Amino acid sequence: MENRITERVKIDFDPMRSLMYLNVNNEYYHKLDCWLHRVHVPESISQFGPYVTRYAFYKSLPIPEGSERFGVCNYQLTEHHWLVNPFSPQLKIKTVQETMPLEVLKWEGLIPDEFDPEASFSADEARGKELADASEVPPLAWNFVPMWWEEEFKGEKRCADDGDNFRWQFVVKYPDGVSKEEGDKWMLGEVLPKFAQMEESVRILTSAVMQDVNASPFARVVEIWFDLPRDWKTTALKKSSTIQAPSWASEGNCFPYLRPAFEIQSMFLSDMPTFDHLGQYTGHITMR
Amino acid sequence: MENRITERVKIDFDPMRSLMYLNVNNEYYHKLDCWLHRVHVPESISQFGPYVTRYAFYKSLPIPEGSERFGVCNYQLTEHHWLVNPFSPQLKIKTVQETMPLEVLKWEGLIPDEFDPEASFSADEARGKELADASEVPPLAWNFVPMWWEEEFKGEKRCADDGDNFRWQFVVKYPDGVSKEEGDKWMLGEVLPKFAQMEESVRILTSAVMQDVNASPFARVVEIWFDLPRDWKTTALKKSSTIQAPSWASEGNCFPYLRPAFEIQSMFLSDMPTFDHLGQYTGHITMR
Amino acid sequence: MENRITERVKIDFDPMRSLMYLNVNNEYYHKLDCWLHRVHVPESISQFGPYVTRYAFYKSLPIPEGSERFGVCNYQLTEHHWLVNPFSPQLKIKTVQETMPLEVLKWEGLIPDEFDPEASFSADEARGKELADASEVPPLAWNFVPMWWEEEFKGEKRCADDGDNFRWQFVVKYPDGVSKEEGDKWMLGEVLPKFAQMEESVRILTSAVMQDVNASPFARVVEIWFDLPRDWKTTALKKSSTIQAPSWASEGNCFPYLRPAFEIQSMFLSDMPTFDHLGQYTGHITMR
Amino acid sequence: MENRITERVKIDFDPMRSLMYLNVNNEYYHKLDCWLHRVHVPESISQFGPYVTRYAFYKSLPIPEGSERFGVCNYQLTEHHWLVNPFSPQLKIKTVQETMPLEVLKWEGLIPDEFDPEASFSADEARGKELADASEVPPLAWNFVPMWWEEEFKGEKRCADDGDNFRWQFVVKYPDGVSKEEGDKWMLGEVLPKFAQMEESVRILTSAVMQDVNASPFARVVEIWFDLPRDWKTTALKKSSTIQAPSWASEGNCFPYLRPAFEIQSMFLSDMPTFDHLGQYTGHITMR
Amino acid sequence: MENRITERVKIDFDPMRSLMYLNVNNEYYHKLDCWLHRVHVPESISQFGPYVTRYAFYKSLPIPEGSERFGVCNYQLTEHHWLVNPFSPQLKIKTVQETMPLEVLKWEGLIPDEFDPEASFSADEARGKELADASEVPPLAWNFVPMWWEEEFKGEKRCADDGDNFRWQFVVKYPDGVSKEEGDKWMLGEVLPKFAQMEESVRILTSAVMQDVNASPFARVVEIWFDLPRDWKTTALKKSSTIQAPSWASEGNCFPYLRPAFEIQSMFLSDMPTFDHLGQYTGHITMR
Amino acid sequence: MENRITERVKIDFDPMRSLMYLNVNNEYYHKLDCWLHRVHVPESISQFGPYVTRYAFYKSLPIPEGSERFGVCNYQLTEHHWLVNPFSPQLKIKTVQETMPLEVLKWEGLIPDEFDPEASFSADEARGKELADASEVPPLAWNFVPMWWEEEFKGEKRCADDGDNFRWQFVVKYPDGVSKEEGDKWMLGEVLPKFAQMEESVRILTSAVMQDVNASPFARVVEIWFDLPRDWKTTALKKSSTIQAPSWASEGNCFPYLRPAFEIQSMFLSDMPTFDHLGQYTGHITMR
Repeated sequence: MENRITERVKIDFDPMRSLMYLNVNNEYYHKLDCWLHRVHVPESISQFGPYVTRYAFYKSLPIPEGSERFGVCNYQLTEHHWLVNPFSPQLKIKTVQETMPLEVLKWEGLIPDEFDPEASFSADEARGKELADASEVPPLAWNFVPMWWEEEFKGEKRCADDGDNFRWQFVVKYPDGVSKEEGDKWMLGEVLPKFAQMEESVRILTSAVMQDVNASPFARVVEIWFDLPRDWKTTALKKSSTIQAPSWASEGNCFPYLRPAFEIQSMFLSDMPTFDHLGQYTGHITMR
Repeated sequence: MENRITERVKIDFDPMRSLMYLNVNNEYYHKLDCWLHRVHVPESISQFGPYVTRYAFYKSLPIPEGSERFGVCNYQLTEHHWLVNPFSPQLKIKTVQETMPLEVLKWEGLIPDEFDPEASFSADEARGKELADASEVPPLAWNFVPMWWEEEFKGEKRCADDGDNFRWQFVVKYPDGVSKEEGDKWMLGEVLPKFAQMEESVRILTSAVMQDVNASPFARVVEIWFDLPRDWKTTALKKSSTIQAPSWASEGNCFPYLRPAFEIQSMFLSDMPTFDHLGQYTGHITMR
Repeated sequence: MENRITERVKIDFDPMRSLMYLNVNNEYYHKLDCWLHRVHVPESISQFGPYVTRYAFYKSLPIPEGSERFGVCNYQLTEHHWLVNPFSPQLKIKTVQETMPLEVLKWEGLIPDEFDPEASFSADEARGKELADASEVPPLAWNFVPMWWEEEFKGEKRCADDGDNFRWQFVVKYPDGVSKEEGDKWMLGEVLPKFAQMEESVRILTSAVMQDVNASPFARVVEIWFDLPRDWKTTALKKSSTIQAPSWASEGNCFPYLRPAFEIQSMFLSDMPTFDHLGQYTGHITMR
Repeated sequence: MENRITERVKIDFDPMRSLMYLNVNNEYYHKLDCWLHRVHVPESISQFGPYVTRYAFYKSLPIPEGSERFGVCNYQLTEHHWLVNPFSPQLKIKTVQETMPLEVLKWEGLIPDEFDPEASFSADEARGKELADASEVPPLAWNFVPMWWEEEFKGEKRCADDGDNFRWQFVVKYPDGVSKEEGDKWMLGEVLPKFAQMEESVRILTSAVMQDVNASPFARVVEIWFDLPRDWKTTALKKSSTIQAPSWASEGNCFPYLRPAFEIQSMFLSDMPTFDHLGQYTGHITMR
Repeated sequence: MENRITERVKIDFDPMRSLMYLNVNNEYYHKLDCWLHRVHVPESISQFGPYVTRYAFYKSLPIPEGSERFGVCNYQLTEHHWLVNPFSPQLKIKTVQETMPLEVLKWEGLIPDEFDPEASFSADEARGKELADASEVPPLAWNFVPMWWEEEFKGEKRCADDGDNFRWQFVVKYPDGVSKEEGDKWMLGEVLPKFAQMEESVRILTSAVMQDVNASPFARVVEIWFDLPRDWKTTALKKSSTIQAPSWASEGNCFPYLRPAFEIQSMFLSDMPTFDHLGQYTGHITMR
Repeated sequence: MENRITERVKIDFDPMRSLMYLNVNNEYYHKLDCWLHRVHVPESISQFGPYVTRYAFYKSLPIPEGSERFGVCNYQLTEHHWLVNPFSPQLKIKTVQETMPLEVLKWEGLIPDEFDPEASFSADEARGKELADASEVPPLAWNFVPMWWEEEFKGEKRCADDGDNFRWQFVVKYPDGVSKEEGDKWMLGEVLPKFAQMEESVRILTSAVMQDVNASPFARVVEIWFDLPRDWKTTALKKSSTIQAPSWASEGNCFPYLRPAFEIQSMFLSDMPTFDHLGQYTGHITMR
């Protein structure tokens, strides 16, 4: 009897938040939008509704000029708040697999246009793994962090009354051979303190990525808020010249000293979700 | 001082799903429907809303001919997703007891029509216990399983795009004297592999019942999906003759070799809940 | 590097319920109402939505005459059901601080009118701490109890069908120098049994306050239900004379033998929440 | 210039209610259910959301034995409340045509199984017209009545407190050659008064069909309520023998003296909608 | 044939708003609240949902001292926005009559406590008619006005940003023998202009009552807003002495020169509804 | 008595749809988004909720290159479905004026940055009128059309199954001196038929603007759908050279022969609303 069922192991309560950065080929923007809302959102809620407590899309704000070196993603941040680690062995079976046509992966730029359309990929393969190991396609940034930010460098008292914010969120992967400790030493000891000193920044938050959850190559998430895009430009493009390069810098000769898309990916976001699905969606779902 | 309060013991996080099969006497179908929605659903949400994350009703599909020997229930599957074991000692007190007139138990066929209407039953007594221990009334099938299916025998890649499904869900109690291991050896080693080989089945899922939660007599839940009822008939009524009887078989001379209603109960379901209460209901609730 | 991030410590699953009693200066009732709903509720849901499962306001019923000595609060009970202890160290950072103008604290009577409006208070300081340590302002009653009542003294079978209830909920702080055990001996051994004997009471529930959560000075929450306010008067004002004073009684010469507002605070409530925010509100929220 | 646009003619405010009776081939019940909720409901709301104020499905109750001669429909009543006549010329254009595969018409029994699947039908053709003019397929019963019942013969004071009801709703087409006045003379002067005299009936309501809206062949809608199905049997099958046959009776020798499915169609309904779409659905819609 | 059905007459589109002032005997406040939400609201929505577009309850604010002479109602304003006149003949039949126990009328003070409980009243009789014609019980104030205010005397530019308001809404019946024109001459020519001149008032709105709808004895609705209750006192109790008595004044020697409860009824309200039922309620409804 | 109230005139039922095109200065995109959702949407729903039946925002898709000459708006389409003409005299009073800081008008580019911030504008002045009469600022495109499209030139059978669409919606104002008839002769007789012949277009819809509602300078709304942006480019930029210039052409030497922003404004839209407010929003509203 092959399918032996072992003793039930209770699953850990482990509230976490995941942040997925998505790109879109603008030629397919409307296709991706409609497919996500008509097909993907209902399927997702049907599956994880009982153990996800917030599921939101945040559309990218218009992207400021000069941000190319920060590996900007142009579509949306997909955010989940989970009560459990969704990669726990107890969750290995999905009652209904999410529909994930290769076409969608092309719309999102996750696979090249010329990819063999006959090949078959599951949603997990498409998302959780690096499809591009051996290629030059940047990894999908899907990062898990604790449900609450771990560290704040500025703006502890900031209220809604202080104004709506222009948020710059980014994830970094330290170059191969640089340890997380070494990388963080630069990020937490040099980069963020310098940003904290700049008068244009109003809030700085950061958490270490829980890389063990899904083997993400990225090590840290950072969010820095400004009043306006022009403040981002002043700090990230100009004043950032005061940030000392790390000893291990290999990429470029200016901040962020990391390879765009491969070692740093960014999103520009407002304070509000564009879609707060669990609060809004009460359409068709299916039995798990 | 009699009511001594002992030390607080933290409750375990233990996400689980419960599946209750209900029958109805068709003469009272409309009474049961209205009572459930007007009285029972609001009372239930008032009570368990803070620790239940999905609460759904799935109405029985029209029942295929020939299914009598599978102990079919003709009303609905009531499903909950719980964050904690609702039978934990910490939950012993209900602020407001659910209204449960004996009349309702008669509508559901849980007690015989001639039962003494002056007797008083709490909802828990009516549901969690076998009212019929010493009688010939079959047990109420209310079974707890982990929040995620434990095993799949077929159809790992099945998507919504593959078509809407005709689901056959059943629970089995192995005959007295047959251990769970022995029973599972037949179910997992003979029955489900045989069904997996039949071309008409498109998905097979199963979990062991967490019998310790509420002392359920049933040992296992199985779900087998088909495209159409005629496929169910082809497999469960005809091709099932290829399934070897277990050595301990005592009931009947054909599959399922179990006593209907007492050792096997079934439901025929579609993919969609008829009522997804927590997503839809925002009416009157009460303070806990 | 000052901001050293230590190892991630998993947060405990610890479902609890918090009960906050609020007063209002009637001159500002409409201001407080509008501010709570326009500003505070959205901010709160934005922050704790992913780990709170019920968030409700219960407006005070008209206050019966003669209840002054029970420290009645005249505005509302604010109730949360939490999946985790919100004072856990993992929650130390709030992405956006709740707006909490001093004006609001005045509307609620938490700080005196002549308080220095230039001083700055965070929401946590205003709520979680006693602003009034050295003064004569009574403490804000914000008490955490387990998600389920710990003890019941009467009315185990009470259903909705038995009638709508007039609920008297109160919290007690035993006088300085009186241990929790000693105080409970009187409350659980003398007070509640006496109330249980009075025919007017229909339900009695109580839990010990989890004082370690937020250092609440209060030790116990009690809820006693009646059919009508006149029944409350009959029991709490008249028949309560049969309740023996505790040996440590210092305040007054009649029940409850506790200093109003400082050692006992009460609310009169109906069975229904006035606002069940998580079930009803789907307006503007912000990213955490 | 062919596409001349004429003067805008204001559309009339004309609140009406439409009642559509649907059958299902039980072999496809789950297909029809899922298709309606996943595909049809969102498309419908996208189209008519701005001028429909209630859109509900009422699933058929279990059908009592002996009801064949009343032309019972076994699937559901689809009900709309319209602010305007949806067949007004101003509504002639649909931004997006509703998807209506021939397969669905087969599931509903509206076209025979052997119908040419290559033929193309719009939703309107499938519904609003009699597909079966020249054939022996009964007409689809889709009838428009005023938003409020026109006549009541019994039960003016009936409240929810008086009990949940077993509702028998039916539509009648008087035989060819019998005028509406002549037919109504029998229905309103003989049939309904007789039913009103029977003690088992608790409520009787009727309205004339607004046949001009969609050229419905049916002339009148009647609803008679009972406590239980057995009461329906007592009245409709037994006591109905006291109802005098109309002079123009041609069909059968017992009540209802009308040709099943062609001249009378019935539904058995409870008091509650199974789906109240406009109140519940907030999923994906499209731009008109 | 007695029940002759006449030609269908189209109903007029006539958007209107109704304002009902309710009192409560505080001894029953919790009973009335629970009954309204559990029983009455679902029944009402079931009935008028298709032609009512807002249905809200506004709880009375704490009542300022000195307001007795303005006939203050202490419970709530019940507000509907209708698309049609609900007293049109086309609406004469209610599928299900609203449950209206005499007990509720006593809770609301609409009938005296000693009223014969065996008598039977429909909801309409209880509400739409003056139960008290020949007695000394004041009329129920249920007044219909156009959906939009007809006149404004002050505050055209007032925005939400200008602050939350303390609203005083009142309805007046001019004394017997005083024509509407004569009464309005004083109200619109003397009273409201005087209030407009007082610096404490921030907004003044008024509409004539559509008395023909339900034969209301009241002639006009007025709403005057203030920042705080103390501003109401300053104007209505003190500065109102500058308002000239009408020639027809018979009641009292100070403003409002009308008989409390009989000729003037008032409510004190905040800007927000306590319950916006059509936006929030998605519980149990019934078929019309 | 100055404020004479004239006879009540019933308002006409006149279902219409309004389409407002908004621009944004990208520097303020996040400010505009947050302000609209936190402040403007609740204020709007509070005001018009009872007579508006759909209120949606459609965010602009990424704008294709080469579209400048079509006067593209880069922010969103704001759409309402009204039951009455909102400019009817009966609606002249707004209980609460919508907050409309000049800052917002600047964010939207409706007034120049150097505009006098001390000046005061109401929402109506800012929107309904041309602020720019005497200047070179293009008019705000806010156009009213019947609730249903008046004409279709292609794609009558198009279903959701035929694919998600890339919609090009535009409004045209014929040059001064060109009558509506003359302009329509070209648009309906030459432009749209040519587009209908191009294989890339899949659907063509148009309605005349109801210019009398708000004195809009624009005469006609057109919507042409494509599969992909590249199809729009092929038709609007290349194949449009086959469209004959009108005799009255004055602007440019290529299609559309109209002055960008002044005589033609466009939006690129997907099939789905980004926000369907009336379906989703149940937050704070205020009394009318």
